[in-house]
Amino acid sequence: MTVTAPRGFRAAGVAAGLKSSGAPDVALVVNDGPLQVAAAVFTSNRVQAAPVLWSRQAVADGVVHAVVLNSGGANACTGPEGFLDTHRTAEHVAEVLGCSAGDVLVCSTGLIGERLPMDLLRTGVDAAAGALAADGGPAAARAIMTTDSVPKTTYVEGDGWSVGGMAKGAGMLAPGLATMLCVVTTDAVVAADAADAVLRDATRVTFDRVDSDGCMSTNDTVVLLSSGASGVEVEPAALADAVTRACADLARQLVADAEGASHDVAVTVRGAGTEEAAVAVARAVTRSNLFKAAVFGNDPNWGRVLAAVGTVPVEVAAFDADRVDVSINGVQVCRAGGVGEPRELVDLAAAREVHVEVDLHAGDASATVWTNDLTHDYVHENSAYST
Amino acid sequence: MTVTAPRGFRAAGVAAGLKSSGAPDVALVVNDGPLQVAAAVFTSNRVQAAPVLWSRQAVADGVVHAVVLNSGGANACTGPEGFLDTHRTAEHVAEVLGCSAGDVLVCSTGLIGERLPMDLLRTGVDAAAGALAADGGPAAARAIMTTDSVPKTTYVEGDGWSVGGMAKGAGMLAPGLATMLCVVTTDAVVAADAADAVLRDATRVTFDRVDSDGCMSTNDTVVLLSSGASGVEVEPAALADAVTRACADLARQLVADAEGASHDVAVTVRGAGTEEAAVAVARAVTRSNLFKAAVFGNDPNWGRVLAAVGTVPVEVAAFDADRVDVSINGVQVCRAGGVGEPRELVDLAAAREVHVEVDLHAGDASATVWTNDLTHDYVHENSAYST
Repeated sequence: MTVTAPRGFRAAGVAAGLKSSGAPDVALVVNDGPLQVAAAVFTSNRVQAAPVLWSRQAVADGVVHAVVLNSGGANACTGPEGFLDTHRTAEHVAEVLGCSAGDVLVCSTGLIGERLPMDLLRTGVDAAAGALAADGGPAAARAIMTTDSVPKTTYVEGDGWSVGGMAKGAGMLAPGLATMLCVVTTDAVVAADAADAVLRDATRVTFDRVDSDGCMSTNDTVVLLSSGASGVEVEPAALADAVTRACADLARQLVADAEGASHDVAVTVRGAGTEEAAVAVARAVTRSNLFKAAVFGNDPNWGRVLAAVGTVPVEVAAFDADRVDVSINGVQVCRAGGVGEPRELVDLAAAREVHVEVDLHAGDASATVWTNDLTHDYVHENSAYST
Repeated sequence: MTVTAPRGFRAAGVAAGLKSSGAPDVALVVNDGPLQVAAAVFTSNRVQAAPVLWSRQAVADGVVHAVVLNSGGANACTGPEGFLDTHRTAEHVAEVLGCSAGDVLVCSTGLIGERLPMDLLRTGVDAAAGALAADGGPAAARAIMTTDSVPKTTYVEGDGWSVGGMAKGAGMLAPGLATMLCVVTTDAVVAADAADAVLRDATRVTFDRVDSDGCMSTNDTVVLLSSGASGVEVEPAALADAVTRACADLARQLVADAEGASHDVAVTVRGAGTEEAAVAVARAVTRSNLFKAAVFGNDPNWGRVLAAVGTVPVEVAAFDADRVDVSINGVQVCRAGGVGEPRELVDLAAAREVHVEVDLHAGDASATVWTNDLTHDYVHENSAYST
């Protein structure tokens, strides 16, 4: 039920010693074809890790044979030496697998600003190559974890073809993309340009709508690999639907496992003039520390929702503040910008999921952005990460 | 050393029962002239509390006789009834003082979405009017506190004239403005349009550069009152300097008292193409929960600084990520986008103040934005505020 579920893929995950804990930290995913079609999207952060710079070039021709991923170090802000480390990693994988380095993507995650221990990484690649197996997906999913408490995998079945996937990410989750590495595989037959379009559309409405802590990473990478091993030529719409479902499933798992969170919060904005306006307003709410701390305290503090809504510039989202309604878990606590039902009717303690609905009464567009509450454990985990 | 330090002002602060704690919650500041010149700036939030809507109109003619302020309730998101409450408060103050309601500003702070108990407020106004005194500034400063642990006051002496001030604010501190109420007084002789220009320039580089938690309030108000009682006609530049120093002093006190903070963090961006670009980059860093949690953990995690810098769009701030330097407390931990001095050389535990310097190497402009670390206590205070 992961990257090796579709036909034509092998994977492995091994412990190379990059993590001081001794947990698995090097993963390899190999596409045995017959097709080696690939697409990828990367962080929109202007500070881009070496593996992002490398992989962006390597995937440009739409052909990828393998993806090597490591946890235990992001290889970000490591200068020309860091880029050389990534390049050498790709060359070593290519040598072991007998392919071109230009067909190897590299993904790294962990602390920024530290060089990777290349000896350990090379040995890890050798071990991973030796362990490659058609049922190696779960081991690979485990090897890319950082502060994740569980591996994230997904599977969507088509008619004679399928989509599988794995992802990591538990903090620094913000759009463009969430801080995450993700590999999605399919045995459907698809052309490179179609794969690219499918992946971009899917990430736009899934990973890009997860905003756990508003912090955008330097290493985010989502890769789609197609082996074509099913021999089934799938309609682009059908493939788009399956890939979007796979990405949505993984995105929800990221939110559910976000560092220190005790609530998953879906902020849905309706009645917006455009989808972009709805996203902007929803994102303003998901970035309000005050509101997110209130949710942690099981306090349906709708005034903090409205205060966040009001920070969106009028040129981004046109609406009249006096017409805005807010419901929390179905209780309309704010009506027309003022007091609605008693906030005491909202019980946030009852469930992990919280649904906030904001109606702008300014159009027909809507969007949902997912976030988490702001908790003591978030502060704890993120104040102790690099030390 | 507060609003009653300049000549021509009386003030009072009383307990009216708006706060369940019984602490003082109604303040009155009266300008006895001979001038009654005033200017004010307000929150840029599109959701504006009733007292903001009222006061914006009342100050438009540049004449203000009195400012009434209450803690214990923001009177925000309270609809037409809330606006009527503000209007009645101004009329009641006007009646008691024998002036026009249109010359009375109203400021409120506290929980959003609850009506004010008007009977208590009216009785409080009567008591405050009876207690007005030329040394009443400290009592007024105390009556506007919410989660503030100390009152904030300031005093700047000129040549035969002076500037005094008080402010409240300890959370929801973000630009446009910080969540705060502030009254600055002067006995300098100044025209209304000059007062307005002076106040706008001062707030732009002081309160608007405090960003404790990225949350912009619905009630922020900064008022400047001139009595002209010194008889000294002050050069606009000299008055601007004094008002800016008063606002800067109060802004620093807000940061120093921010909810739950254990560090005050100054983020200075140098080498920017424009001041606006420098502010945008500094603000991105001050809004990174990950970086702020790291500071709480005394972890000089410069990768999180760089990751935040990289989120600023190129059209907002042009720079090359490979040229960015970052220093923390004088140690250049990041050089040219890569590893600099060892992070172990930075000792964050030694002092409350943390200085982050980012050099973009893209121009000559610079700016500093102040924030705090993200702590357990911040989460605690803001998860329990309204319950």
